[in-house]
Amino acid sequence: MPTFNPVTPELITQLTAILGAGSVSTARADIDLHAKDQSQHHAVPPEVVVWPTAAQQVADILKLANELHVPVTPWGVGTGLEGNSIPVRGGILMSFERMTNIVQVHADDFQVTVQPGIGHKDLNAQLARYGLFFPPDPGANATVGGMLANNAAGIRTVKYGASKDNVLKMQVALADGRLIHVGSRSVKQSAGYDLLHLFVGSEGTLGVITEATLKLVPIPQFMSAAIAAFPTIKSAVETVVAVRGSGLDPAALELIDATHTKMLREAEGVDLVDHPTLFMEFHAAQEATLEAGLEMVKEICDEMGALSFRSTTDSTERKKLWHARHASYEIMVRSHPDKTFFINDVAVPISAYPELIAYVEQLRDERHITCYMIGHAGDGNIHVEFPFQGEAEYQNALETNGLIVLKALELGGTATGEHGVGIGKAKYMPNEHGDGLNVMKSIKETLDPNGILNPGKIFIETEHESVE
Amino acid sequence: MPTFNPVTPELITQLTAILGAGSVSTARADIDLHAKDQSQHHAVPPEVVVWPTAAQQVADILKLANELHVPVTPWGVGTGLEGNSIPVRGGILMSFERMTNIVQVHADDFQVTVQPGIGHKDLNAQLARYGLFFPPDPGANATVGGMLANNAAGIRTVKYGASKDNVLKMQVALADGRLIHVGSRSVKQSAGYDLLHLFVGSEGTLGVITEATLKLVPIPQFMSAAIAAFPTIKSAVETVVAVRGSGLDPAALELIDATHTKMLREAEGVDLVDHPTLFMEFHAAQEATLEAGLEMVKEICDEMGALSFRSTTDSTERKKLWHARHASYEIMVRSHPDKTFFINDVAVPISAYPELIAYVEQLRDERHITCYMIGHAGDGNIHVEFPFQGEAEYQNALETNGLIVLKALELGGTATGEHGVGIGKAKYMPNEHGDGLNVMKSIKETLDPNGILNPGKIFIETEHESVE
Repeated sequence: MPTFNPVTPELITQLTAILGAGSVSTARADIDLHAKDQSQHHAVPPEVVVWPTAAQQVADILKLANELHVPVTPWGVGTGLEGNSIPVRGGILMSFERMTNIVQVHADDFQVTVQPGIGHKDLNAQLARYGLFFPPDPGANATVGGMLANNAAGIRTVKYGASKDNVLKMQVALADGRLIHVGSRSVKQSAGYDLLHLFVGSEGTLGVITEATLKLVPIPQFMSAAIAAFPTIKSAVETVVAVRGSGLDPAALELIDATHTKMLREAEGVDLVDHPTLFMEFHAAQEATLEAGLEMVKEICDEMGALSFRSTTDSTERKKLWHARHASYEIMVRSHPDKTFFINDVAVPISAYPELIAYVEQLRDERHITCYMIGHAGDGNIHVEFPFQGEAEYQNALETNGLIVLKALELGGTATGEHGVGIGKAKYMPNEHGDGLNVMKSIKETLDPNGILNPGKIFIETEHESVE
Repeated sequence: MPTFNPVTPELITQLTAILGAGSVSTARADIDLHAKDQSQHHAVPPEVVVWPTAAQQVADILKLANELHVPVTPWGVGTGLEGNSIPVRGGILMSFERMTNIVQVHADDFQVTVQPGIGHKDLNAQLARYGLFFPPDPGANATVGGMLANNAAGIRTVKYGASKDNVLKMQVALADGRLIHVGSRSVKQSAGYDLLHLFVGSEGTLGVITEATLKLVPIPQFMSAAIAAFPTIKSAVETVVAVRGSGLDPAALELIDATHTKMLREAEGVDLVDHPTLFMEFHAAQEATLEAGLEMVKEICDEMGALSFRSTTDSTERKKLWHARHASYEIMVRSHPDKTFFINDVAVPISAYPELIAYVEQLRDERHITCYMIGHAGDGNIHVEFPFQGEAEYQNALETNGLIVLKALELGGTATGEHGVGIGKAKYMPNEHGDGLNVMKSIKETLDPNGILNPGKIFIETEHESVE
């Protein structure tokens, strides 16, 4: 584990020289605001918060911190769900709150170049006038930099891909203060090693993203939605496979389990039955495509034994149909006002999805634990959500989470589909990657020999194994 | 530049101990067969050819070669176009001709696991019974391992992506003999560094792919085609942007320039006019979608001033319409029976495509050189094809190629969209990547400290700068 030096008054002076007076703070309020993300992981305060406004400032700060062996943790807007941006070793917290510009819209290229601190919802609001949007949507208004650093995904990944699939080029500041670019604005590039995707998903541990050129897609002219309930998870998943196999190219294929639909119905009278329910969305350039598509989807659902089927091409109706899915997290939180939530995130090949879910149901019964399942079924990704209060319930959730992760790995899946490794998943990486983890470590040591970049994440550090 | 040792009789004995007697050869015929790919680069013979049949054998050979400082060059089937698999430093040529098995079809997961030596056409022939296919298609029956190592792409990249977008997991043998796996059969994974995409496109210089799990897609139920000629390259490219912006999601968007259509018409009476011509293909799950789509495409082409428009949803007619594009290379070669071909490969953001092409036309006139342009216009990728005979014509082609590469880089593009760096593009990498190239080098040194893996590729080695 790397040894670090504390942030000294001299360093504060140097940071102020780089950034100016209003961009460096050790005030309690600023420190506390940047000590914790939206996960259940404990708060750890940084020693100083800085707000760069330009890439060169980011690079200069890294160079300085590297020379002094002071850790640097990049911070988007704190919506991470695995402690990815908690500064567990203290040091410098680098906020991107003041790097939110759209640098250039390349409308004919279906691209936009942005600073990393812009929220993806804010970006899409500004792109609407061009008829274009950046598709990854993790729910919260996460920053583009945070989404890229964690390879965030969300509901529409089944059609449009995760963050990694929607970025072409980045500028990255390295630990030694070099500023490099990776990738190309050309959508095709076979020119050497794919450094772009090495930095995407590296959670700020290899370099800090200072600018990104994103792929955009045309805002679909027509959208439809369908909801269907099934007698079993198995028949719901068989429907997912059949819909994807039909070539219909759904834009979203979401699953809510029966416990979750029951909670939604009881809490807010949402019009659902207590059975596994699929939420589907389709995008098209022409209305005829959608209507023909919905007929085909209905046929598939009927064939798979759907208990109910509702669909629409009307935009108001569509929003109503999807309301239960979009509001499911808020409704769940409102239904458990005294609880904190522990959110699990694993993914498996879709054929293993029924077995994974059956295992979670078995654990729920055996361990007398409350949990809800909501999944990006089209991608084999599931979130098991555990409300807890107090240490005993927390430990039960933590252990159950661990068993689910091990099961996902046994089924050929991953410990994290979209939340990243952060603090909580580091302990599973040896199991998931085997000797590949040593290759990752050797790359980390090559690019960040002093270990200053977001320490305590991805790789196990004995002292911090118990940070959770 | 690394120093290597020659292949000795002792090493031959050791290789034979690993592989068995029939899998190691120093016979002239075998050596000559593996000295050259389909590019214009000079042949360089390996010292010995080996045919492993299992991943562990690959790993054992690398370990041995690494200890002895003997270079190893992996070989698929020799269809590379940039000298990527020419063993320029001699040593061991590792052919994957005997690792062609389909390991497992995961039909419900839309995945297949294969050994690296299988040809993608052979793979797709076997997958047809499942209604699935592996979409990247570089033309020749390249091996899957070679396609992944070079991130090959081809005609349908605009819809389905390049090789890097169609792989989920690989087993890779490292220089020190470790066998690791990278990626996951889960389609979503945010679990640490993306080693999968670090090895994809690394041209066998970081490790050797011994197994790959590929993403498959349903064979489209319905396909349509359209051909339209335009007065200028600019209007053709504006049509490309409009078609993509419409949300129609074309499966292919190809451009042939007027010189090329003229040659096709004169050589074989192909029914084309002497104007820039777009070839389009669309895939759909339902016939209604295609018909509505073709109407929309015709409207766009008319609006952009198309001189002609032909389209069809009939499969026989579609093949006829596309014949000129599919056979263009063969027809060109037949039209120049005494010539060798130098094939350029660059890509730019689509908005820069007209400027790039205008520059090639200018060079053609100024330098009195014969060349044809054929492009994956949907991706901004172009191939300028130079027939040449004798040193003077070769030098002219080589220099013209260099000027085109520099122009592509100036326009924010790349020196290679899909052929890889190999030998010929190494000299442009400092320009394309700047300090990023040093990061690539440091990763190379970390994973292959003795430099035994496919030496002389991607990075400039002074001695071999003049290999062309």
